[in-house]
Amino acid sequence: MVSSCISKLVIIGVGLIGGSFAQALRRAGLVEHVTGIGRSPENMQCALERGIIDEQTSDFAAALSGADFVLLAIPVKQTAHVMQQMASYLETGTVISDVGSTKQNVVHAAHAYLGQHISRFVPAHPIAGTEFSGADAAFPDLFQDKPVVLTPLQENDQQAIDRVATLWQCCGGRVSFMSPERHDQILAAISHLPHMLAFSLMQHIRTQSFTLDEGDPLELLHLAGSSLNDMTRITASSPEMWRDICMDNRTTLLAQMEAYQLELSRLRQMLVNRDSEALEKLFSAARIIRKNWTVLRNES
Amino acid sequence: MVSSCISKLVIIGVGLIGGSFAQALRRAGLVEHVTGIGRSPENMQCALERGIIDEQTSDFAAALSGADFVLLAIPVKQTAHVMQQMASYLETGTVISDVGSTKQNVVHAAHAYLGQHISRFVPAHPIAGTEFSGADAAFPDLFQDKPVVLTPLQENDQQAIDRVATLWQCCGGRVSFMSPERHDQILAAISHLPHMLAFSLMQHIRTQSFTLDEGDPLELLHLAGSSLNDMTRITASSPEMWRDICMDNRTTLLAQMEAYQLELSRLRQMLVNRDSEALEKLFSAARIIRKNWTVLRNES
Repeated sequence: MVSSCISKLVIIGVGLIGGSFAQALRRAGLVEHVTGIGRSPENMQCALERGIIDEQTSDFAAALSGADFVLLAIPVKQTAHVMQQMASYLETGTVISDVGSTKQNVVHAAHAYLGQHISRFVPAHPIAGTEFSGADAAFPDLFQDKPVVLTPLQENDQQAIDRVATLWQCCGGRVSFMSPERHDQILAAISHLPHMLAFSLMQHIRTQSFTLDEGDPLELLHLAGSSLNDMTRITASSPEMWRDICMDNRTTLLAQMEAYQLELSRLRQMLVNRDSEALEKLFSAARIIRKNWTVLRNES
Repeated sequence: MVSSCISKLVIIGVGLIGGSFAQALRRAGLVEHVTGIGRSPENMQCALERGIIDEQTSDFAAALSGADFVLLAIPVKQTAHVMQQMASYLETGTVISDVGSTKQNVVHAAHAYLGQHISRFVPAHPIAGTEFSGADAAFPDLFQDKPVVLTPLQENDQQAIDRVATLWQCCGGRVSFMSPERHDQILAAISHLPHMLAFSLMQHIRTQSFTLDEGDPLELLHLAGSSLNDMTRITASSPEMWRDICMDNRTTLLAQMEAYQLELSRLRQMLVNRDSEALEKLFSAARIIRKNWTVLRNES
């Protein structure tokens, strides 16, 4: 337990993820002091008021002095810039991690800017979130039973990897390891693509509202059941964040979208062909996977 | 209140919808006796044990004798056959309704088989459900604040329309009226299409699991967050029911799928073009609709 204890935790970007990480570690009694760095004064004020952080600063030198652990919980696109700003102030005992939704570009930035400190930078991605953002939305249970993927680098010290893994486990996460490339491919399939489908679906409803209604999508949505509600919940997510994820994982996401479009065309063709048997078979196969997944979730 | 009271309610098909309707009316004190007709002995036994129905029978003559209200809560495809079976036993005071997810075909069957009784057949569609089915899954709050679309026919008695509307309101539903054609178009957009997207997404994950993993979709799903979970929840729905909905609303659904595929291709083209501005604009527009919808839901 002693080795997991953090005297000084630095959270760069005290939003939903960074804030919840600090709260979870504090609740677990693993952290003594939390320093926050962030762009929005209102958000930092909220983080202070909610007791998520003990102090806020914009001074990297002061923040990183004596830090055991630094978490970058910022939009992926800012990673390179922030690494550049912090590199010269990093101490040799500081372990660094991030929470970016894409990993190859983060690793690229780390290689470019972290120098020798890369041995203690262990990239991570907690696959958790809500449609809300900011310190106000943070809560310590966010990572409970949620997957956390670590993509260690060949330059990493084993001790740094162990420390990052342990901290996420203490937050309730289910830690697994893979390469940054594999992470980005899998996430394109299970997260980035589904988001694109949800955004397109909302856009489709908007377009259809002009055809079927008087142009107000809310008239149509007022009739919608929980299926559409569930399928579009994630469209309330941050547009900037999703723009960046799209651009960061562009090639892989494009391949996933192409493959999905083929699947959807196959289903459509079954309908064109009036092939009710093929439709039922497809629906049954989907149902079986879904039910097995539900069992798996309930077991874990 | 007296005019809404039902001495004898007949539920044909005591599943999630039929069972919940009976429970809601019983809880509201609006029904004295419930007779159930169904195919599965196990399900009917469950309905009896849970007190959803007071008696079960397979004898249409006995069931319909003295019935005030008959609800057809069966798969849409069986509607014509059941209407044919019941037509000769219907009494002139009996109001009839259904719960089918598509309406033009139900109206077609009613015209074919109900004869003069069509004046008291008011088609309805409660837009409520869960991924579970059967009497075991029924619960009286299922329709609370849920949309219920009535598609009255020009042959309908106003009294019959009023009665059906009132009963659904007493179940907690938000009743609205439209033509069967418009119903089928709107439902294709807000329900049938989303289901197709979810089924294709699950099939896509299955396909991708062979590329990205060792062929077990559960390995991929184990890493998935709540976004994929929400987007595929409805794939646990009955494959037979969705096969039938697809075939019943085939032309309209095909048009919706085509329009959606164009939207998805537009989004993909933005990504091909590296047009991050257009992506952000699209995501923002979706977010605004979603947020307004959430406000609307919370108000209603």
